[in-house]
Amino acid sequence: MAPTKSPDSSRRSDRSRRAIYDAALALVGEVGYPRTTVEGIAARAGVGKQTIYRWWPSKAAVLMEAFLDLADRAAEEAAAQPGGVARGLPDTGDLAADLKLVLRATVDELNDPVLDGPTRALTAEGIVDAKLGAEFIGKLLDPQLALYVTRLRAAQEAGQLRADADPRIALELLIGPLFHRWLLRTLPLTHAYADEVVDYALGGLGVSR
Amino acid sequence: MAPTKSPDSSRRSDRSRRAIYDAALALVGEVGYPRTTVEGIAARAGVGKQTIYRWWPSKAAVLMEAFLDLADRAAEEAAAQPGGVARGLPDTGDLAADLKLVLRATVDELNDPVLDGPTRALTAEGIVDAKLGAEFIGKLLDPQLALYVTRLRAAQEAGQLRADADPRIALELLIGPLFHRWLLRTLPLTHAYADEVVDYALGGLGVSR
Repeated sequence: MAPTKSPDSSRRSDRSRRAIYDAALALVGEVGYPRTTVEGIAARAGVGKQTIYRWWPSKAAVLMEAFLDLADRAAEEAAAQPGGVARGLPDTGDLAADLKLVLRATVDELNDPVLDGPTRALTAEGIVDAKLGAEFIGKLLDPQLALYVTRLRAAQEAGQLRADADPRIALELLIGPLFHRWLLRTLPLTHAYADEVVDYALGGLGVSR
Repeated sequence: MAPTKSPDSSRRSDRSRRAIYDAALALVGEVGYPRTTVEGIAARAGVGKQTIYRWWPSKAAVLMEAFLDLADRAAEEAAAQPGGVARGLPDTGDLAADLKLVLRATVDELNDPVLDGPTRALTAEGIVDAKLGAEFIGKLLDPQLALYVTRLRAAQEAGQLRADADPRIALELLIGPLFHRWLLRTLPLTHAYADEVVDYALGGLGVSR
């Protein structure tokens, strides 16, 4: 009684899928979103166009999934590092230290040359294409932001974050500056900068009276 | 003794220049940066391609100038409003109130449907095209950021901003969140949000011990 799908064919599928992801990300990083086509992805991955259309309805769908897969793998790699973050944001009880760890990891991801091209290309397309942008936000960004909300709520319960601060807004003071600097390339995006953003946001810029 | 350039021909030039700016901005907002061409701008402005090349070396140059002109006009309009900001950021001695005024005006500009299309298109292109991005930052963004630095230094001298805060980093806690929300369309960009960002950034998120 052989299974309907042999281990060999499933391994072949996995290989094709991985080749398609890699081709899609490489292509979008090189020529940008508008000039990336399903034909181009298929040719680069060494599969037929129909193979792609069997699994995904559009180039946007392939890219989104390739990107989610890349982010997953980056997260797994980060978790495997000493002191790495497994699921959710770390909670050692020291809010500033935990946020610095997370923002430094974000800095490393944003500076990663493998991620930079495709991330820029998809972000740029999401900026002008509201529909694609919304999908990108819903599938990729919102789940990440939810992790910040959870960690910030815990900090509120522990009396480390102001009780009247809305965590959903508070997190934007942490990630907005990094995003601005990375996207516009105004100044270098470094660990020291990540630390400063955390210190400034938690401590406040104003002089208390 | 007639002048070498008659008032008529100079008026004609002004009209052509304005038509070219308008056409360039409309086109880039509609079809995006990559598909905007000098030919397309010329056709839409009702001028010959050579008229454009007489004044500008490339489509990037036309667009940059059209955009600078648009920003100048928006700034002039804002200055003409009651309580409008003339040159530099307002300094009434109340840092929080002044920053809220400025960030609310920024919210209005970002939400302006006339500015939104071309601003997104140029920002998106600057994200993937580092050379264009650097020009955009140098000519358009850096002068604006310098105004924040000046205002924040004045606040430091007045004892309203922490003496150990770097104004160039501090300003990113104010504009980074707005930029993030506008560009990614995560949540509505409102005056209330601008106020909250100022309050959170100045007051700090952490609980002082």
